[in-house]
Formats: sequence, structure tokens, C-alpha cells
Amino acid sequence: MTEILSPLDRRELRTRVSLALTGFLDRQERVLRRISADLVEPAVALREFLDGGKRLRPAFCYWGWRAAGGAAADGALDDAAFTAAASLELLQASALIHDDYMDGSDTRRGKPAVHRRFEALHAADGWDGDGARFGAAAAILLGDITLTWCDEMFTRSGFDAQRIHAARPIFDLMRSEVMAGQYLDVVAQNRGLGVATPQEILERAETVIRYKSAKYTIERPLQLGAALATGDGDEAGPVNAALSAYGLPLGEAFQLRDDVLGVFGDPATTGKPAGDDLREGKQTVLVALAAAHADGTQLKLLREGLGDDALDAAGVAALQQVIVDTGALDAVERRIEERTALALDALERASVESEARTVLAELAIAATARQV
Amino acid sequence: MTEILSPLDRRELRTRVSLALTGFLDRQERVLRRISADLVEPAVALREFLDGGKRLRPAFCYWGWRAAGGAAADGALDDAAFTAAASLELLQASALIHDDYMDGSDTRRGKPAVHRRFEALHAADGWDGDGARFGAAAAILLGDITLTWCDEMFTRSGFDAQRIHAARPIFDLMRSEVMAGQYLDVVAQNRGLGVATPQEILERAETVIRYKSAKYTIERPLQLGAALATGDGDEAGPVNAALSAYGLPLGEAFQLRDDVLGVFGDPATTGKPAGDDLREGKQTVLVALAAAHADGTQLKLLREGLGDDALDAAGVAALQQVIVDTGALDAVERRIEERTALALDALERASVESEARTVLAELAIAATARQV
Repeated sequence: MTEILSPLDRRELRTRVSLALTGFLDRQERVLRRISADLVEPAVALREFLDGGKRLRPAFCYWGWRAAGGAAADGALDDAAFTAAASLELLQASALIHDDYMDGSDTRRGKPAVHRRFEALHAADGWDGDGARFGAAAAILLGDITLTWCDEMFTRSGFDAQRIHAARPIFDLMRSEVMAGQYLDVVAQNRGLGVATPQEILERAETVIRYKSAKYTIERPLQLGAALATGDGDEAGPVNAALSAYGLPLGEAFQLRDDVLGVFGDPATTGKPAGDDLREGKQTVLVALAAAHADGTQLKLLREGLGDDALDAAGVAALQQVIVDTGALDAVERRIEERTALALDALERASVESEARTVLAELAIAATARQV
Repeated sequence: MTEILSPLDRRELRTRVSLALTGFLDRQERVLRRISADLVEPAVALREFLDGGKRLRPAFCYWGWRAAGGAAADGALDDAAFTAAASLELLQASALIHDDYMDGSDTRRGKPAVHRRFEALHAADGWDGDGARFGAAAAILLGDITLTWCDEMFTRSGFDAQRIHAARPIFDLMRSEVMAGQYLDVVAQNRGLGVATPQEILERAETVIRYKSAKYTIERPLQLGAALATGDGDEAGPVNAALSAYGLPLGEAFQLRDDVLGVFGDPATTGKPAGDDLREGKQTVLVALAAAHADGTQLKLLREGLGDDALDAAGVAALQQVIVDTGALDAVERRIEERTALALDALERASVESEARTVLAELAIAATARQV
């Protein structure tokens, strides 16, 4: 993402979010240490895991709060807003820890994935039994505790009980939606291009990005922040609806950009091997559009190559070519432009605080920009 | 467990808990159906999973509420108390779904475990890819969503926001403790009898049962119910401390009984194959005591047999004999008696509502009784 030039710049937001997380994790580590010294290792693993990341969801949550006049209503709650926003990083960490295990990913941001880290601990300590199974159990349990810590941190962020309670419907919906979206994503990957019509495949891919990504990453965090400012946790409430009109198309554009990077991105930028999404068999909108417009030869290539763990550089290049030649890449780029324009247009018309409007416009560009 | 003869008998408690769960799951299923018809299968799987169970944690939570005068304070909150109590079944369901996958258990209460159920769905629908991996992903995600639904249901149980907020410290501690306990249990299983001293092995086993079971199953649910009645979420508060003096030793006795059943129990009663805990290599207090008092030959048998997936009936019988001959079984039976007596004594002295006292005394006997 390009840098955002805003009064509260990205670095400050990151710092405040990191500070809130550190404070929370310090307290939790003390709780765990009292139980057993063997819990220090999981606590440290989680702390290191949470050290990275773009803090995208906290950014949208914080700016949703600002957009809805949170700072004007009570500037003293700025710390609470950063803490509530930071709690979303725990939900994201839980999802990534479980995802990496489910996908069989060995690394995350250049370091061993959590299940691999604990598998290595097993080997280093010369324990009995199956190290891979121990790594899996550790990753599942660490993801679980992190998931409960998300709502613990959110609840204790510093807003009063009534305000937290009012915002909970959006918080709860966000969690159910992202997990539902992930399940649908796994189902789609396993179904493959199978017997469905191109239209069905496309609709399924659109449902997955809406729930797994657009709502979860942008729309709901924005609304959650706004609900903390207004006390209105109804997704159809006026401010929440206005933020949805910006956040949902932007979230779709953001995920479409991510899908393009997953196929065409430079490993140095994405941190993932080139064509990784193809090997994983992700049923993205990009792939669905390619399948819809493929001729017999192209469709055969797609069917055989997608989800093939052993796909080599030539295989990746062949699939990339199909995606270009069918017009799918151009179509997705147009969609990204359209959705981003829709989002910016909605933001222009929304009745939101002016500094927030500026930052949200910048975030929209940063989240969807073409990358070299 | 033997039947409890109480004014609100076990059947009524189970019915109220089941009704609360059904109402909550109905609403969640509507949310999921709006996203995609593909989410009906997970919703149904979860509903069926929650259909069984002893409702032990809800019973202690409800009677904690009653013990602290909840009904006297506001009888109209009886529904809310059952709903809050029922939410603990979602935490338990999440833990069991994940546990079954981590342990590689194929069945739960005589039906396929969740990961196996979804593996079968994969095969029945003739999907691409690895069915076992799909089953794993489905079980992990279903456990995750169930975990978030626990706090959603608890929060929306019908108590006001202030009261829920006041009780949250115990709710949060309970969740962290059970996951910490599970992690320590997995570590202990993987460490095996290794290089630790008998005293270390015993202490580790005691820590595991305290956090994974005694606190999670009895102490914290009781205190959670009490906190909803009193508004005091401090575990050291007077009512909570009195309930801990009853709940913690009782919880230990309950788990020790469960450990005995895991080695000597009749499969018809336990629903698990005879000696299953031995095959899984569980490092229970029973096993730790056996190891501490074993001679060379007995220790060799223990080291070789524990955690051996392929242990046959003769192997199970040999280990059972070691546990009897070392005096470990007798020692554990004495511990169960002592802890139960401690619990009943504390209950006698506690300042709690009289009907609750009667029921809690019956629950103590039922949860720890020798079974034929």
C-alpha cells in the first residue's frame, strides 16, 4: 500500500494500535505465567505474531469512529477508540493462525507459521509423539485463545458497558460473517470448477469476497467504530448505512486487488511465492471470469492447473496467460476502478467529519492502487 | 451420573437449557441462510452436536446464580439465567469439536465427529481435493464460529449491559484457563514420562486437571452464575470465594473420577473404547501416581504402553494391573473422597440460598460417585 498523507499519519496509528496490543498482551501473559511457565512460549509466539501487519482493520475502525464524530463527542475516549480498534488485530491473528494451518502454509511474513513454530519446539525438546500433530494442536489452541481475547479486549477497551453493548450487534455479525465466508471459500476450493455454470461460479466467488473480505476488512470495522461513537449498532442506521455505501464497494475493490496480486504479484511485494493463489486453487472472481470466457483449450488448462500443489513457473505462466487472454484481468481491473469510484462517490455524499473524510479517501486509494 | 432429586430436577434444567440453545441457534441459522444456502449444513451439524451432553456447566452456572440469591433478587431473570448458563454449552461444543480433530477421534457420542462428518460430505458430493483436509478445515471453522457464539449468547442472555460487564472477568478467565489447560495437557502428552521426576509429573497432571477441568467445569460456571446475581465479578469476592471452596475441590474430584473411568470404565457407560485414555497417552494424576510408585518392570510397561495407538486388550489389561498394583487406583479413590468431603464441608459453611445448597450437595455426589 502507498503511504497515506494524513494529519494522523499511518505511523502514528500503527504505534497507538501496537501500544494497545502490547498493554493487553502484557496483562494476559501475567495471567498465563501464574498458571504455568510452560505457557510463556505460546504467549511469546502470539506477541511476535502480532508484531507485524498493516493494521488495516484497526485503521478503518478508528476512522469510522472519527467519521461518526467520536472525537468531537468525547476526545478523552481516543485511547478507548484505539484499543477497541486494536482488538480487531486479535480476530485477524486468530484467523491467520488457523488459516495457515488449514492451508498448509509454512510461513507467515517470512517467519515460520505458528504450527511450524511449535512443531520445531517439539523437535528441539526431543518430545515423544508426532511433532506435526503437536504443532497443529498448538496452532488450533493458540488461535482459539486469541479469538476469545479479541472480544475480551474489545469489551474492556474503555468505553462504558452500555456503549459496548450497543455496538455488539455489528461486532458479532462481523465475526460470524468472516467465518461463514472462510467456510464458503474452502467449499469453493474443494468444489473446483466442477459441474457449476460460469454464472454460479462467479456468484459464489462474489459471495466469498463480500463476506470473507469486503465486510470483514472494511465495512464492519468502519461501522463498529461508528457505533462506538453514536451508540447505534443497527447496520441500517443512518451513519452505518452511509459508511456501508463507501466500505462495501471499497472492500470488494480491495479484495479484487489482492486477488490480482495473488496471481500476478511480485513475491518481493506480496511475501508469497508467485502464483500461490493458483496453486491453492482459490476460486476468485478473477478465476471465475477467466473460466466463464475460456475456450475449450483454456478451460482444460484452468481445470488441470488450478489447485495443483506442484504447479511450476511454466504452469503458473500458462495460467496467467489464460487469465489475460480471456479478458479476465482487464475485467477485474475495471471492476476495481468502478468499485473504488463508487466508494469515493458515496464518501463524498456522506455526512461525516471532515478530517475523517480526507483520510478515508486516501485509504481508499491506498487499498486499491495498482502496484508495480 | 446418578439422578438428582431436586425441586428443579435435572430434566427440567436440561429442557430449559435446550430451549435457550434452540432459540439462539434458530436466529443464527437465519443469519447464515441469508449469506448462502451452503451454510445450512454447518448450521445443522452444530445443532445436532449440541443436542446431546449432560449440561453440567450450565447446571453449575444456574445453581451458582440461585446460590447467590439470583431468583430472590429478580425471579423475572430466570430466563436470562438459563440462557447465560446455556451459552457455556457453546464453549464446550467448540472445545470438543476442536479436541476431536486434534486427538484424531472418529466419533463423539456414537456419531461421527465433526471433521469426519464433513469429510463424508466431501466424498458424497464428489468434490476435488483432499477430503480429510476439508473435514479438518470445516471442524476448525465450525469450532471457531461456535466459540464466538458463546460470548454472543452470553452477552445477549437478557441481563442488562452493566450486569454482563460485571461478570465478564470470570467469563474471560474461564475461557483463557480452559485453553491454557488444554495446551498444557497436549504438552504433557507429548513430553510423556520422559526425564521428569515423579513429583514434576504429578504436579503437571494436577495443574492440567485444575485448569482444564476443575475450574472450567465447576468453579468458574458457579462463580459466573453468582456474579450475574451479585454484580461482583471479582473471583476473590465473598460469594465467589465461598463457591470456589466448594467448586474447586469438587471439580478436581470430578476429573479424577473421569480419569478412573477413562482407564477402567465400561465402554457401555463411557461411550469410549476401554482404556482409551491409555492409548491417547493422557498424563493423568492416576498415571502420574502409578509412575511414581512403579518398580522397574512396571515403569517399563507404562513407558512403552502409554500413548501406543495400537494397544490391544491385553496391553490395556497389563497397564490397568500396574495402576492397581502400584496403589495408584486406591490413592485416587481416596483423593476423590477427600476432595468431595472438602467440597461438601465448604458448602455446609457457605452462606448460600437453601434450595441451591441442597441441589449443589446432590450435584457433588452425582458428579463423583463410583460407577458400576
